[in-house]
Amino acid sequence: MAKQKKQPRPKAITPKGFRDYFGAEVSARKDMLDRIAEVYHRYGFDALETSAVETVEALGKFLPDVDRPNEGVFAWEEDDSGWVALRYDMTAPLARVFAQHRNDLPTPYRRYAMGPVWRNEKPGPGRFRQFYQCDADTVGTGSVAADAEICAMLSDTLETVGIPRGDYIVRVNNRKVLNGVMEVAGVLDPTDPDKFAHERGIVLRAIDKLDRLGVDGVRALLGEGRKDASGDYTKGAGLTEAQADVVMGFMDAKRDSGAETVARLRELVGESKVGQEGVAELEEIESLLAAQGYGPDRIEIDPSVVRGLGYYTGPVYEAELTFKVLDEKGRKRQFGSVAGGGRYDDLVKRFTGQAVPATGMSIGVDRLLAALLAKGRIDTTQEGPVVVTVMDKGRMADYQGMVAELRNAGIRAEVYLGNPKNFGNQLKYADRRNAPIAIIQGGDEAEAGVVQIKDLILGAKIAENATLEEWKSRPSQIEVPRDELVAQVQAMLKGQRDDAET
Amino acid sequence: MAKQKKQPRPKAITPKGFRDYFGAEVSARKDMLDRIAEVYHRYGFDALETSAVETVEALGKFLPDVDRPNEGVFAWEEDDSGWVALRYDMTAPLARVFAQHRNDLPTPYRRYAMGPVWRNEKPGPGRFRQFYQCDADTVGTGSVAADAEICAMLSDTLETVGIPRGDYIVRVNNRKVLNGVMEVAGVLDPTDPDKFAHERGIVLRAIDKLDRLGVDGVRALLGEGRKDASGDYTKGAGLTEAQADVVMGFMDAKRDSGAETVARLRELVGESKVGQEGVAELEEIESLLAAQGYGPDRIEIDPSVVRGLGYYTGPVYEAELTFKVLDEKGRKRQFGSVAGGGRYDDLVKRFTGQAVPATGMSIGVDRLLAALLAKGRIDTTQEGPVVVTVMDKGRMADYQGMVAELRNAGIRAEVYLGNPKNFGNQLKYADRRNAPIAIIQGGDEAEAGVVQIKDLILGAKIAENATLEEWKSRPSQIEVPRDELVAQVQAMLKGQRDDAET
Repeated sequence: MAKQKKQPRPKAITPKGFRDYFGAEVSARKDMLDRIAEVYHRYGFDALETSAVETVEALGKFLPDVDRPNEGVFAWEEDDSGWVALRYDMTAPLARVFAQHRNDLPTPYRRYAMGPVWRNEKPGPGRFRQFYQCDADTVGTGSVAADAEICAMLSDTLETVGIPRGDYIVRVNNRKVLNGVMEVAGVLDPTDPDKFAHERGIVLRAIDKLDRLGVDGVRALLGEGRKDASGDYTKGAGLTEAQADVVMGFMDAKRDSGAETVARLRELVGESKVGQEGVAELEEIESLLAAQGYGPDRIEIDPSVVRGLGYYTGPVYEAELTFKVLDEKGRKRQFGSVAGGGRYDDLVKRFTGQAVPATGMSIGVDRLLAALLAKGRIDTTQEGPVVVTVMDKGRMADYQGMVAELRNAGIRAEVYLGNPKNFGNQLKYADRRNAPIAIIQGGDEAEAGVVQIKDLILGAKIAENATLEEWKSRPSQIEVPRDELVAQVQAMLKGQRDDAET
Repeated sequence: MAKQKKQPRPKAITPKGFRDYFGAEVSARKDMLDRIAEVYHRYGFDALETSAVETVEALGKFLPDVDRPNEGVFAWEEDDSGWVALRYDMTAPLARVFAQHRNDLPTPYRRYAMGPVWRNEKPGPGRFRQFYQCDADTVGTGSVAADAEICAMLSDTLETVGIPRGDYIVRVNNRKVLNGVMEVAGVLDPTDPDKFAHERGIVLRAIDKLDRLGVDGVRALLGEGRKDASGDYTKGAGLTEAQADVVMGFMDAKRDSGAETVARLRELVGESKVGQEGVAELEEIESLLAAQGYGPDRIEIDPSVVRGLGYYTGPVYEAELTFKVLDEKGRKRQFGSVAGGGRYDDLVKRFTGQAVPATGMSIGVDRLLAALLAKGRIDTTQEGPVVVTVMDKGRMADYQGMVAELRNAGIRAEVYLGNPKNFGNQLKYADRRNAPIAIIQGGDEAEAGVVQIKDLILGAKIAENATLEEWKSRPSQIEVPRDELVAQVQAMLKGQRDDAET
């Protein structure tokens, strides 16, 4: 090895906006994703895992005028591949995969994808630059049965991971209905689709912010514009009062039953062809779902759902959790959206020139995990191992023999491998490991052929609550013959589990 | 939306050296990793998931003289984090995590990590720039009990995923023994460890290539150098014949029993202190493993194992699969190494200045999967869904009701969502989906309250083998009352499974 110039020590930190996940954080997420995958699988969706790196061209984020791809993605240049970037979602890679492999894939192609995505955005509290997404999409069918299916699957998924019925609602709408309303309001001209596109973009984003801005805020954005609390001014769509009335009427079109909502929407879209098409699709989705037993207690038509993304072309859907949690200011508020999606018919076309209809959803993995945590549905305490302590360094082989026996019986177990000199440190270690039981065998015990089994959970309880008498009368440590080690540990673990359940 | 300049269509390809994984490929890997994680968990190892992106400084790949980090990693510069890179292994991030969080982590810290790593290397057949690693490490203990534990765990892991005992061997060696031999050979001076470092590097890499180069090739590299088949010349370490004899003797030191091998190594290291230390460690590892029942049929001492990485400082280990497979030229050869690791005591020190002993292993996930595939231990055919065909577009709700019933009974099922006009296409689709059963209900059947259940597996068998009489006498399609759909599908699936097992 060549001698190297002495360098300052590197800093042991992650890059800005990235973090590490430890133990129970990793397994809780994994458990949830496993359960979701089971539902997706049952619905006939197949797994797809694309690589983290895509060409910037395929991701569709390349701006030809600038030296560097636009902000929002992590991108860099490679000699043999040009500009490449980390994927920022699962949909863009799916479009690339379908375009690339369409002759080898079944059509329609139902696929799910789970994994990290990366966003080069300003990190903030709870906002990281790498986070998980969990998507399911059906590519290659224009049938709204595919949209209905995704909504049903979303409902099943939420219940399977632990959100009880009544604590969530999947809301469905249709962009075509909104376009019909825009046509009626005079901001969409079917003979010139590009006209008013800018205004419609503002309307879309305004409606999407209804829960944050309220009716007045949205109305301001439909008209001249809006100044927010910080004084920033957002220019509005410039709609007249009458035009804004039409749009506001759409957002307010939800009625007590799906049939009534559909009837109201039909009024609102009037003669608009695209609007009528959208209403008919909503009606069909509702009847398909009803046939499978999904009523408005699980999935309902709600015209206020529009989804922010510009690429949706038909049905859009969103899962909202309806139970209350405390926000950062201690106020009760609805938990809010954890998943959403919709139909997008033009993403594959970018590659092939051929329109390929597709629909799909994305679950916000971290949001859903947070919800399950808030509902007490996730066990964040890691199951600790039985810790075999080391009283006599020279007898390490004996201790290793004990853990091997315990493991062979399926019990999570480990030997203390730190410096065994200070026994207190060993118990502190067991505590930090959340160990339910410690095993102790000194020279005397070894000679007598016995071993001490210490119930650390009972011990902790006694230390917290008990009087001196109780302390003495409830020994948390028992001495048993060495050859009964496994059986006694099993019995103690069972007792602890039974205690925890009652 | 603003009008955009018309661009050429993007190419639907991955960047060079990357690929997609579909269906069964994803689930086979996942199943294997799940089983491995179960073993790691039972041994007391906790999951850790670090982000894909690390600072180049933390990864330790930054060369101060060049503008750009060295080749081998995917790296780019961020305004707020400086040079960052995709992790190229799991060990460097672990060292960073332990340095960063050492006050909150138990010591010793046993952790496992599974996930993709990225290498900016020349891709080739079967060599990709993103691939999975699956590591387990114990940080914060110098005890060789930790090394023994990893070897035992590696053995358990291989058997758990499906490599039977006898088809693998975990081989253990110790760098200190090699250093002792180097001392005896006169290429290591304990009073000046940097002296001959270059020569020792060549020796190390030469020994590591024993199985590829053979004894003569290694010997040439220990001496003047070696010209390979393509004519490329590799300069050797420049050892004299006598020096090379000592090193070659080390590689050849394996005897029939561990005790004999240890005795031979003890002779070889002579008076070298580090060499004697290494031999004693090997002896201790063997006795610890024997106490847990791991004999030389699973784990053995083998001096020819050295591992290529420069950072190992003590015990090194490697799992080799001993069964034969055909290589690309059709020759039988041993499958070879699927996992390895060793003790590295200086990685955390880079950050903190304090030496933190550590040991760990990495499993080559793709290699192990390939091995399981070669042994027929992996099911690469995806369990296909029951496909409900669409005879009548207007009755989509009925068909959706059928799949809902099937799914609620836990059966993987889907409705055909493509254009239903051509029924042949629906059966082709079912075939491509590997569907075991197709459900058919036309208008007449609906009226009569019945449904057709088509056994696609039996159908395929008959089509392949049967005479016309057999074809007629073994109907692969049955008609059942609609309300028996689920029960009859369950029965047919069970029959197919029973058939497959016999």
